[in-house]
Amino acid sequence: MAKLRQDRAVRTREAILEAAAEVFDACGYSGTSIRLIMERAQVTQGGMYFHFKSKQAIAEAVIASQQEFVRFPDGEDGLQRLIDITFHLARELQTNTRFRASVRLAVDQEEFGKRDATPYFEWAEQFRRQLVVARQRGELRDDVDEREFAAVLMASYSGTQIFSNMSTGRQDLPQRVTALWRYLLPGVADESVIGRLRITPAEAGPHAA
Amino acid sequence: MAKLRQDRAVRTREAILEAAAEVFDACGYSGTSIRLIMERAQVTQGGMYFHFKSKQAIAEAVIASQQEFVRFPDGEDGLQRLIDITFHLARELQTNTRFRASVRLAVDQEEFGKRDATPYFEWAEQFRRQLVVARQRGELRDDVDEREFAAVLMASYSGTQIFSNMSTGRQDLPQRVTALWRYLLPGVADESVIGRLRITPAEAGPHAA
Repeated sequence: MAKLRQDRAVRTREAILEAAAEVFDACGYSGTSIRLIMERAQVTQGGMYFHFKSKQAIAEAVIASQQEFVRFPDGEDGLQRLIDITFHLARELQTNTRFRASVRLAVDQEEFGKRDATPYFEWAEQFRRQLVVARQRGELRDDVDEREFAAVLMASYSGTQIFSNMSTGRQDLPQRVTALWRYLLPGVADESVIGRLRITPAEAGPHAA
Repeated sequence: MAKLRQDRAVRTREAILEAAAEVFDACGYSGTSIRLIMERAQVTQGGMYFHFKSKQAIAEAVIASQQEFVRFPDGEDGLQRLIDITFHLARELQTNTRFRASVRLAVDQEEFGKRDATPYFEWAEQFRRQLVVARQRGELRDDVDEREFAAVLMASYSGTQIFSNMSTGRQDLPQRVTALWRYLLPGVADESVIGRLRITPAEAGPHAA
């Protein structure tokens, strides 16, 4: 019985976060109310308050789970994989409500009085890991600082997706990511590999679960 | 008399926009009320409604004036001036409340149900003008598309200032802009000029009015 209750609690929490993501994505933080989330998640007030005491607590949980449900495509680590990951994230931003909501909340967090760069640094760290392998493989120019470029890429990517959202609802995001790489690669990639790198979205294989 | 009334109307409108910028910058769109702006601007309800009928109308006027009060530093057009402009904008973001508020509102405009990329395109257009001259001067690589790179720079710059704001309240923005240029320049600048370009803030001369 305890196990069943626990399963149910996990499912309720998930249902709340899923519903919250949909509402935050559509209405933004200030346009969202706990009541709207409860209705969409079909949970009672008791169920809601067991898990979350405030709208802000839900928003923080949505942001915190940002990396949990984005599964990177398989591939050999290095510069090409870093590029592929940026296109994968573009696709996720187009299609994954939960990811989109968490990104929107991370950008808009001043609305709820927060200024926490942690989600940004987490992405920079993901990028840096690929750059460390790229360095070992001799794919980087000598003057590239992996940590510095990871932060540059993360910030540039973030601005690119915001602008693409503003101008086309992210429809042109893959093309904008291609353009970004067109101008970044000469400053990053070693001459010996730059011609081999593909800066367009990978062909969609069997859809990853 | 008519002239006096007109002068006063202009001053009132300016006072409202100035006060609104301070409140929007500090509290964001949803944290701002018309009453807060009226109190700070010391205008009456009648004075306010003569100029602006809603909070949204004020926010749109603040965004629309984004380029009016940012004066670019003098200089010879071209790639170095483009770089200098990005450092000038960094300094303005650190010190100019009106500019900062207009940028914040442009990023957060979904909060008031708008999705208008015009302010973004205006900056891209400013950047493009410098790139057109840079092209004439032989400062660009052959494969640079001026319009495309202008958009890449604008989006990357936008993300850079958002991240810098989130992590350090924009204190490290000049260093982040330097890092951005470090990785963008090899993809943009012709080899003949790249060594001469300075990608640090210009020495502060006599303070521009």
